[in-house]
Amino acid sequence: MSEEHPLVVFTPSGKRGRFPVGTPVLTAARQLGVDLDSVCGGRGICSKCQITPSYGEFPKHGVTVSDDALSEWNKVEERYDQKRGLKTGRRLGCQATVQSDVVIDVPPESQVHRQVVRKAATARAIEMAPATRLHYVEVEEPDMHVPTGDFERLARALTAQWDVHNLSTDLSTLSQLQPVLRKGSWKITAALHKDHKSDETRLIAAWPGLHEGGVYGLAIDLGSTTVAAHLTNLETGEVVASSGIMNPQIRFGEDLMSRVSYAMMNAGGDAEMTKAVREAIDTLAKEIAAEAQIDPALILELVFVCNPVMHHLLLGIDPVELGQAPFALATSESMSLTARDLDLTCLRPAAQVYLLPCIAGHVGADAAAVALSEEPGKSEDLVLVVDVGTNAEILLGNTERVLACSSPTGPAFEGAQISSGQRAAPGAIEAIRIDPVSKEPRFRVIGCELWSDEDGFWEQTAATGITGICGSGIIEAVAELRIAGLLDPSGLIGSAEATGTPRSLAEGRTHAYLIHDGSADGGPTITVTQGDIRAIQLAKSALYAGARLLMDEMGVDKVDRVVLAGAFGAHISPKHAMVLGMIPDVPLDKVTSAGNAAGTGARIALCNINARAEIERVVGEITKVETAIEPKFQEHFVNANAIPHATDPFPELAQVVTLPQVGFNTGGGEEGGRRRRRRG
Amino acid sequence: MSEEHPLVVFTPSGKRGRFPVGTPVLTAARQLGVDLDSVCGGRGICSKCQITPSYGEFPKHGVTVSDDALSEWNKVEERYDQKRGLKTGRRLGCQATVQSDVVIDVPPESQVHRQVVRKAATARAIEMAPATRLHYVEVEEPDMHVPTGDFERLARALTAQWDVHNLSTDLSTLSQLQPVLRKGSWKITAALHKDHKSDETRLIAAWPGLHEGGVYGLAIDLGSTTVAAHLTNLETGEVVASSGIMNPQIRFGEDLMSRVSYAMMNAGGDAEMTKAVREAIDTLAKEIAAEAQIDPALILELVFVCNPVMHHLLLGIDPVELGQAPFALATSESMSLTARDLDLTCLRPAAQVYLLPCIAGHVGADAAAVALSEEPGKSEDLVLVVDVGTNAEILLGNTERVLACSSPTGPAFEGAQISSGQRAAPGAIEAIRIDPVSKEPRFRVIGCELWSDEDGFWEQTAATGITGICGSGIIEAVAELRIAGLLDPSGLIGSAEATGTPRSLAEGRTHAYLIHDGSADGGPTITVTQGDIRAIQLAKSALYAGARLLMDEMGVDKVDRVVLAGAFGAHISPKHAMVLGMIPDVPLDKVTSAGNAAGTGARIALCNINARAEIERVVGEITKVETAIEPKFQEHFVNANAIPHATDPFPELAQVVTLPQVGFNTGGGEEGGRRRRRRG
Repeated sequence: MSEEHPLVVFTPSGKRGRFPVGTPVLTAARQLGVDLDSVCGGRGICSKCQITPSYGEFPKHGVTVSDDALSEWNKVEERYDQKRGLKTGRRLGCQATVQSDVVIDVPPESQVHRQVVRKAATARAIEMAPATRLHYVEVEEPDMHVPTGDFERLARALTAQWDVHNLSTDLSTLSQLQPVLRKGSWKITAALHKDHKSDETRLIAAWPGLHEGGVYGLAIDLGSTTVAAHLTNLETGEVVASSGIMNPQIRFGEDLMSRVSYAMMNAGGDAEMTKAVREAIDTLAKEIAAEAQIDPALILELVFVCNPVMHHLLLGIDPVELGQAPFALATSESMSLTARDLDLTCLRPAAQVYLLPCIAGHVGADAAAVALSEEPGKSEDLVLVVDVGTNAEILLGNTERVLACSSPTGPAFEGAQISSGQRAAPGAIEAIRIDPVSKEPRFRVIGCELWSDEDGFWEQTAATGITGICGSGIIEAVAELRIAGLLDPSGLIGSAEATGTPRSLAEGRTHAYLIHDGSADGGPTITVTQGDIRAIQLAKSALYAGARLLMDEMGVDKVDRVVLAGAFGAHISPKHAMVLGMIPDVPLDKVTSAGNAAGTGARIALCNINARAEIERVVGEITKVETAIEPKFQEHFVNANAIPHATDPFPELAQVVTLPQVGFNTGGGEEGGRRRRRRG
Repeated sequence: MSEEHPLVVFTPSGKRGRFPVGTPVLTAARQLGVDLDSVCGGRGICSKCQITPSYGEFPKHGVTVSDDALSEWNKVEERYDQKRGLKTGRRLGCQATVQSDVVIDVPPESQVHRQVVRKAATARAIEMAPATRLHYVEVEEPDMHVPTGDFERLARALTAQWDVHNLSTDLSTLSQLQPVLRKGSWKITAALHKDHKSDETRLIAAWPGLHEGGVYGLAIDLGSTTVAAHLTNLETGEVVASSGIMNPQIRFGEDLMSRVSYAMMNAGGDAEMTKAVREAIDTLAKEIAAEAQIDPALILELVFVCNPVMHHLLLGIDPVELGQAPFALATSESMSLTARDLDLTCLRPAAQVYLLPCIAGHVGADAAAVALSEEPGKSEDLVLVVDVGTNAEILLGNTERVLACSSPTGPAFEGAQISSGQRAAPGAIEAIRIDPVSKEPRFRVIGCELWSDEDGFWEQTAATGITGICGSGIIEAVAELRIAGLLDPSGLIGSAEATGTPRSLAEGRTHAYLIHDGSADGGPTITVTQGDIRAIQLAKSALYAGARLLMDEMGVDKVDRVVLAGAFGAHISPKHAMVLGMIPDVPLDKVTSAGNAAGTGARIALCNINARAEIERVVGEITKVETAIEPKFQEHFVNANAIPHATDPFPELAQVVTLPQVGFNTGGGEEGGRRRRRRG
């Protein structure tokens, strides 16, 4: 029995079964439900089903595998090896047949549901389960006497060969089908999109023969100030290019409420903003495809995460209701659309678009994406997730309960509204240290690993120059000014006389701190002005107040850990964020950076269709807390205005905190502390 | 028991049941499944549920109805009567409650599924079961602490109040929802479209409060030469306006194959033709709405019937494959689209479009529409249905089997390619008689009931003048020329010497017959030229050959009856069609005109969603016969060229047939008769 029906064991799944001699490995895998990829359906042309047989003794599996456990190399494998090269030991699963007991390993790249390891150490891997998959299919030729349409014959072939049902398509794809079928001699590769909410399968692209050019998706984090995109290979999960541009809507208003006002005050203002952002996304898609050297027509899916105002403006919905209580969303659920719906002309009209659901009128799909990425609802600890942007998305929760709110921090954290502010680009100061004794600064700019006081720094930055300060730079600058005793707790920059450094420059009745004077080389003079400090104080107070409000709602006075996220989240120094009072007290080692968590959430939703169903469910369980009309938010906001930490050079406040051993008390220093205790 | 639960009998349905005293009539009707309309759901505002109680003895129903069988008029009814007027005896079904045994009549205008009587005597009535229905609904207001979107709250209200599930919408409708909800104080009328193929219900329009402006649909017969549209009230089924325009694609080629050639020879030629026809339909929709004095935004549905080439060009699909064997359609099944898909900018983007299925590469959705209208598959007799147009759609069948083919007649029957030809419009000659003795003509023109030899004709036609000959006119002219002995069986116009009338004018080596010389008044000189005769001969031969081919396939030598259809089908004289040899021999009383059967099919599909499912099923059962590559078609075509009937003035052919007692022998006269006998 065992000789005629050898045992086949697959690793790493451990799935096993007996099959007749001569059964192709792919067939055995399919019957056992082993995750082994195939685009061509076992025709020996796609090479997706590569496997590695193992030989010898396998006591764990109770099998001894002889050298001839699989059939000999056949011509198909030889041809493929000559043409493309097969790694040593690899076989094509559709060609190699079972001869005797065998252990077969399915390497990660042959698994459909392979895991894509993310870079950040704390982050979970993304399992591939894309909505769009390729299917090689052979279609019956038309017959004058059986007058079905080409599309209907394709649908029938997909049912027979791939068990695909309820095929539908759109006019643009349909209009390309006939030439593709004829060019491929009735053998084509069909890109099929299966929505998790519909039982329809949509044909969204087709190529003659076997398509080997790859298919791609774009995960887009559509922020108020910046738009970031990751171009992802939909088969491997690999990010092949990342790019960002400024949101062109900035000219209609820097923060969200200014844009809502613009829509309210100008007839057609919302349509203008919709057009601007759609054109920007179209441009971004074109540029990122060019960067990765792929045809934009290979981009078949897009996932958007954004705040509710951007969400509405992207969709062409007037955001006016989001500007006034009760902040009603036009729609809160996830949306499935097409590139054509959004006028993204560089893409296929049928390219599929998914928007994550919104949590509430002020807590959008970006917050949902952060929840998908950081999973506060799966945390045993009480975790505070802060996504820093023009609007901060704040989540607080654990396995029992998750709260969310949004706080209008404004664009200061992103370098806007800052005198020397700029977006994160080569030449921008991203880190800064100020010597507490000499009051002299040293800094690092994007594009150079060296600090400005290290040898070679000026040579290496000569090309870009020192152009400004980006978001993480301004946070560090303000915190360092405070640590160095150049800033008092109320946020006032001391005069040259008071601080003893000529870098304190008088500017009317206030002062500015000179970081770098590039005027000798025709470059800019980079200072931190009193206005910059005020902008950062407003932003950080809003952020802090939002977090406090959630803590009040949760009935807690402290959190176990903090995750800093945001488009530039990975670049924020936790220490400086705490000095600044952006986030509540926790031990420094309990603050982690998640990078662009919203963008990561978008990538997860792009690569895994089950994640879409998951986040739709999770969003329904998140309790939204409204900041805009909550009196306590204003109270927290006012109290959080001070920057009370670090050795204080000014005699009127005596509190001394040593960095970094102690968790920082925030929210208005001693006074804030008292107020918290009263509430607690 | 009977006192507390009086008996309620509804007419005309006969449905009956007992209900507690105080039950509203509408509630009773709903529980019994009686077809009683309501848009507002029983709130007393839409007045759709009007009923008429009957009083007195009803032996048939076993009921005696007292005068107080229903509750007294209430304020809602009084207000409605004052404002709009209620017909005598009418009550509002949602207001009147049952007090004792009662017989209640539901008048046709209160039935959802009312029957719309068609004008043509032979035609069946259309039962109303539109895909789009109005629903008045009260939506919960948004609450900051329950942050669902407005759309989701509307969906929930529709589920609760109307048992509507799986609501979806598009971006354009969604973008209008928030202002409509607020303007209507959270009470709106929603137009919901339920596709017969999907379990989704689509929100396609919404109005504040109760919408009383009506909703409309367009049934469009998209022909190669003309585009005809019927604007239909989707609630009543009434056709409120009909209009037609020339198909602007004529400039790319008069017949279908010329247009396919144009697409083959010119890069982007298909896109040019698509743009032209879509713009024409958009214009037609705008004009017909203006004619009916309605806003085009009230047009919520469109149904198209057309031949496969027009079908593909409308959809934006290159028709090149339809120009060569095996004539593969890109898609053969019915299609559900939106106005936006077809760039119909004067309509709501979400207006729903339905295209009937195609039968085959040469037998299109127009033939399917004829099958839906004329139902050859339900005929006990063997019926030949001929839809005359630039392409003739021909159906032959009975309850056992239905065959279909298409024949390229060209545009001659529609007045194109005819020297004095024009489309059917005031001033066009539509009927003509030629005196066999004097050879003098008399005629009628569109817009005047009189014949040209009757008193007052010239005065009544002075405004339009005599401008040309339309399709039905040219058919009669050629047949009359033959009957009057001015034309020989081969189709040659006799000279003035041979025929003895100065109306035979020499034109080079051939002759023309002068119908009307308007030159004295600056009008045109209207003649039938030898070229006109040739064009009509080619057209009628193609038509006849198609019918013969189907008869061959069916294995019959004659048919029981003939239905003449076409955009101008109602205007064709059956006698003249038979003289001409357009159709096979049947007794004259077995030839009926169905008018624009394709257009009627479109109207049926527009008004009744079940008809869509029905025709999709029926099309699958029709056997398509391909004319283009069938040698026998060519043979029939050549044999059908002659015009053999009527008293023949030329001595070389002696056959004499007296009109109209005898069924006409066609297809080549004596010679043709012999040939048929040989085949039979």
